[in-house]
Amino acid sequence: MKVYLDCFPCFMRQALDAARMATDDTTVQRQVLDRVAKTLPTVPLESTPIDMGQIVHRIVREVTGIADPYARVKEESNDLGLKLYPTLKAQVQRSRDPLLTALKIAGAGNIIDFGPKMTVDANDSIEQIVNDSFAQVLHQVIDPAQYHSFQDKLVEVNNILYLGDNAGEIVCDKLLIEELVQHGKKVIFVTRGAPTINDITLADAHYVGLDRVASVMTNGSDAPGTRLSDCSPEFTQAFQSAGLIISKGQGNFEGLSDVPAPIFFLFKVKCPVIARETRAEIGAVVLREQVMEEAAK
Amino acid sequence: MKVYLDCFPCFMRQALDAARMATDDTTVQRQVLDRVAKTLPTVPLESTPIDMGQIVHRIVREVTGIADPYARVKEESNDLGLKLYPTLKAQVQRSRDPLLTALKIAGAGNIIDFGPKMTVDANDSIEQIVNDSFAQVLHQVIDPAQYHSFQDKLVEVNNILYLGDNAGEIVCDKLLIEELVQHGKKVIFVTRGAPTINDITLADAHYVGLDRVASVMTNGSDAPGTRLSDCSPEFTQAFQSAGLIISKGQGNFEGLSDVPAPIFFLFKVKCPVIARETRAEIGAVVLREQVMEEAAK
Repeated sequence: MKVYLDCFPCFMRQALDAARMATDDTTVQRQVLDRVAKTLPTVPLESTPIDMGQIVHRIVREVTGIADPYARVKEESNDLGLKLYPTLKAQVQRSRDPLLTALKIAGAGNIIDFGPKMTVDANDSIEQIVNDSFAQVLHQVIDPAQYHSFQDKLVEVNNILYLGDNAGEIVCDKLLIEELVQHGKKVIFVTRGAPTINDITLADAHYVGLDRVASVMTNGSDAPGTRLSDCSPEFTQAFQSAGLIISKGQGNFEGLSDVPAPIFFLFKVKCPVIARETRAEIGAVVLREQVMEEAAK
Repeated sequence: MKVYLDCFPCFMRQALDAARMATDDTTVQRQVLDRVAKTLPTVPLESTPIDMGQIVHRIVREVTGIADPYARVKEESNDLGLKLYPTLKAQVQRSRDPLLTALKIAGAGNIIDFGPKMTVDANDSIEQIVNDSFAQVLHQVIDPAQYHSFQDKLVEVNNILYLGDNAGEIVCDKLLIEELVQHGKKVIFVTRGAPTINDITLADAHYVGLDRVASVMTNGSDAPGTRLSDCSPEFTQAFQSAGLIISKGQGNFEGLSDVPAPIFFLFKVKCPVIARETRAEIGAVVLREQVMEEAAK
């Protein structure tokens, strides 16, 4: 999908959020904003939001000198996920349709995303936001037609490429992957190639023990989503040969929404631009099969 | 008050909102964003938010060629205000403390502000937002100590300088001014010198008949607030000799919060930066006397 003009102010806000994660020095924060402001006019409107996101978060890392501004936040999110894991696992196991419940939980976990505005203050901790998101899981409606297509597709394939998104959320991904493994599938789980926002890297996959249920690889890119043109040959090969791809989160959707491939997108709608693009409401968990004809246009 | 770094993304958003008011041409909208993005790095951190606002909205007018992007919105807001006037007037007249009720209504009317994010769509019309704001009027708490200071001050003075803010809201200002006139005061009502966002100009004052209850003058400036250094000598003279100044809205507060003058600020808190600055909650109506010692620092 292409960038909207609404993304321009949003990237200034993202840059400020990330700069504040990296440093308390307001002079440096201002330098980040200035560099981003000077760069925005050079971004072609044919870009995707994650093309812009990659540039913006590289600026943040370069100007602040902090390679991973969200390191602490990612660790906290992973720890929170691991703390919730037993409860969520039990919820999946005792449900009438464990696969559907696991899908919903993996979707709800996508709330842990520091790209879109995610205010975390005393009244509104990550834990509270996550608990609220999970509290709605059982009431969350996944489009039944999409779910049936997903089930049909599952029967056809043995191998699944699973594109992860954020720290913390990765524990929910693990739950879903465990269900897929129960169904006899082999899963390759893909992380970003380097830190960007609170997106997962190999380190997070190992931290939460995802490597014990799936093969794990990176996509070789530091974009906050999947930009195929920026990914490693190894990932590109895995992507092109995949019979089923599960793509988590807005960032992967932004990069792949126009790519003809056997993808099911699974994400929580968190910004007005994505709500417009997907015709879903903010807060909704969306499971959506790639429409191959449209994507190929 | 000085600009916060949070104002930088917000001004990109304001520029986009205003550009969209002025034109449907996304190429022109993009040109506005690019010009604003290039200008932001030149803004000194000692600026006030309305220094930036003035620059940003001049860019919008210049790039789009539209002298008054909010003309239609202002007319609609004024018409809405005039439609509500009889009900609000009756509410003031039958209340136990008409002055306090008029103050609350004038504060609640400050919701009609297109500077801070004010989404107006099918579900959330100006009328709905305004009705919601007025519905809370009677439950709105004005700090009693501040109100008593205001009453004390009123006894001392015969002439009041009243700095208006937005279209639509101006009808609520008229209600409050009618109360002040009832108390035997003479009021000079001040508008902006030229259109900026949905702020009032002389035309609005005449449109709602404010000139029938008060003298009306402009401040000679196109800043979306009172920037004394940018105002006309006539206004500056009136400001310096005023025994009591009622200053409506965030923009006037942003420009005058550090100016030692006998000001009572009256506004609805509409953005996180002003909430932080005033230690009030978003949505609160604030009546606040200028603390002369602090302002003089």
